[in-house]
Amino acid sequence: MGEEKWLVGIDIGGTTIKLAFITESGEIISKWEIDTSKDGSGSSVVNDIGRAVRGNLSELGKQPEIITAVGAGAPGFLEMETGFVYEAINLGWKDFALKDELEQELGVPVAIDNDANIAALGEMWRGAGDGAKDVLFITLGTGVGGGVIANGEILHGSNGMAGELGHITAVPENGWLCNCGKAGCLETVSSATGIVKLAAEIIPSHPESTLKPLLEKEQLTAKDVFVAAEKEDRAALAVVEKSMYYLGFALANLANTLNPSKIVIGGGVSKGGQTLLKPLIDVYAKFALKRVYEAADIKIAQLGNDAGIVGAAWIALEAKRKA
Amino acid sequence: MGEEKWLVGIDIGGTTIKLAFITESGEIISKWEIDTSKDGSGSSVVNDIGRAVRGNLSELGKQPEIITAVGAGAPGFLEMETGFVYEAINLGWKDFALKDELEQELGVPVAIDNDANIAALGEMWRGAGDGAKDVLFITLGTGVGGGVIANGEILHGSNGMAGELGHITAVPENGWLCNCGKAGCLETVSSATGIVKLAAEIIPSHPESTLKPLLEKEQLTAKDVFVAAEKEDRAALAVVEKSMYYLGFALANLANTLNPSKIVIGGGVSKGGQTLLKPLIDVYAKFALKRVYEAADIKIAQLGNDAGIVGAAWIALEAKRKA
Repeated sequence: MGEEKWLVGIDIGGTTIKLAFITESGEIISKWEIDTSKDGSGSSVVNDIGRAVRGNLSELGKQPEIITAVGAGAPGFLEMETGFVYEAINLGWKDFALKDELEQELGVPVAIDNDANIAALGEMWRGAGDGAKDVLFITLGTGVGGGVIANGEILHGSNGMAGELGHITAVPENGWLCNCGKAGCLETVSSATGIVKLAAEIIPSHPESTLKPLLEKEQLTAKDVFVAAEKEDRAALAVVEKSMYYLGFALANLANTLNPSKIVIGGGVSKGGQTLLKPLIDVYAKFALKRVYEAADIKIAQLGNDAGIVGAAWIALEAKRKA
Repeated sequence: MGEEKWLVGIDIGGTTIKLAFITESGEIISKWEIDTSKDGSGSSVVNDIGRAVRGNLSELGKQPEIITAVGAGAPGFLEMETGFVYEAINLGWKDFALKDELEQELGVPVAIDNDANIAALGEMWRGAGDGAKDVLFITLGTGVGGGVIANGEILHGSNGMAGELGHITAVPENGWLCNCGKAGCLETVSSATGIVKLAAEIIPSHPESTLKPLLEKEQLTAKDVFVAAEKEDRAALAVVEKSMYYLGFALANLANTLNPSKIVIGGGVSKGGQTLLKPLIDVYAKFALKRVYEAADIKIAQLGNDAGIVGAAWIALEAKRKA
């Protein structure tokens, strides 16, 4: 046994930055959050991270040398090799050398990737992905994001756009406009926002629905739809079924191409649990090849908000192994 | 400069076996074909390959030591790591240890993969893929096959089914039955067979079409459809457009997930050239994210029947590098 060594996993978001000390086998030793600096500059964020890491180490009575590598995730377009963030709209960053700045601040090698990819890697390593080497990860939140792991590595594609599962076209003709400029994207029908839009379309023809008052007050949320569906509200069931039809169709076609052993559903909408999984798996079974269907479990993500910090530690460890 | 070393690339098909001596930079020194043994046993094929390789080496006045590694492709379900062919229906093989048998016969390390994957790798290395690390390869022949290259490696997936692009569902409801047991697969509308089926549906409402007599005599081929489309036959144009709509939709969704820098179209149908590419690219542009569209060239395969032997040499070289 050598001396104990820790990794730092950092998940930079628009509101908070999540940090953790994590062992090389993926156990979280300690985790905490700090506010994301509001001045919109990457440098303040980097300074805040440095202070937080040094402060928490000393509180735990540890020397800085216990940290051997750092991984960090940020939302936006990143170039993994150079460690450059081209643009992170939520953070107000443009052309920021995140990897270099963090390395100067922390004095150890830093690996970076985008937030959806580190969440996918976290679930692969220590969550629902269960160590599998071929994992399709999709987050259903306000938007829809994803990460594709093949042969144990996250795919980035030729210009960093791989895994943009939210912008797979789910409704080829007459689909709703998407923020990306296309129409009919999966995000328009399978995100929390999309589920509410589907509800607005379906509920009016079900006057008995318990969701009608919420819809009329413009207070309806995706969570309300799942709660009502669990209680067998027919309109709510129809909404969930329609949303999951599109998702199941898209995931089956990806699985026919990528042949994963795990498909992991994360994000706020995934709290729908079995209410969401049952119709999803029915559609998936219809559109996937038999051997492909048999190969893949569809599971709800397990790590919740910890997926990012755990996956960030994973990329730190991977970079160390390859160094 | 060291002594010259050659690889052997072998593409085993149901009718013929293609073989080649290929340099480590991918130049074909000599290529030839032998008939596939009709007795349906893998052992005869292996013996025939051994005789052919030794015979051709001696004709060229070379010693066996010039060969350092062999790659072979076969149609069917293969396990790449063990080198086992579970089933190759066209060859009549079941549970055959292809890699081990070839290694015994030839006395050098052998790597194997399936026929669609070696063709994809051949195009990546020396053909339309142009050395790119992220390539989507699709063959449109009697059926539709494919290979997905990400980070320079072919994807096999969790049980060898990755790249089954022909069985992506293109027509979600009321699609034609496919040989795989599902309905509406891309293969039912974008293969040579699928194009003839689409023609049979579309031509009757175009009595002026020059294809009508061929259809009525049941002699219509996909090639006839492309020839007529080039001459602006409206029914033929409508058939090509419909077939390419499904293909473009499927490829755009894969590209949104994989973000390739090349999409390569091979197989007999790809001889349709620009007549096929133009409507395909229009649909692809509609359904792909802008940055994804900009990243990828869609090209016709360049190596024709040589793609398999070249890709087989590539897997031999890769296995050697990793050994």
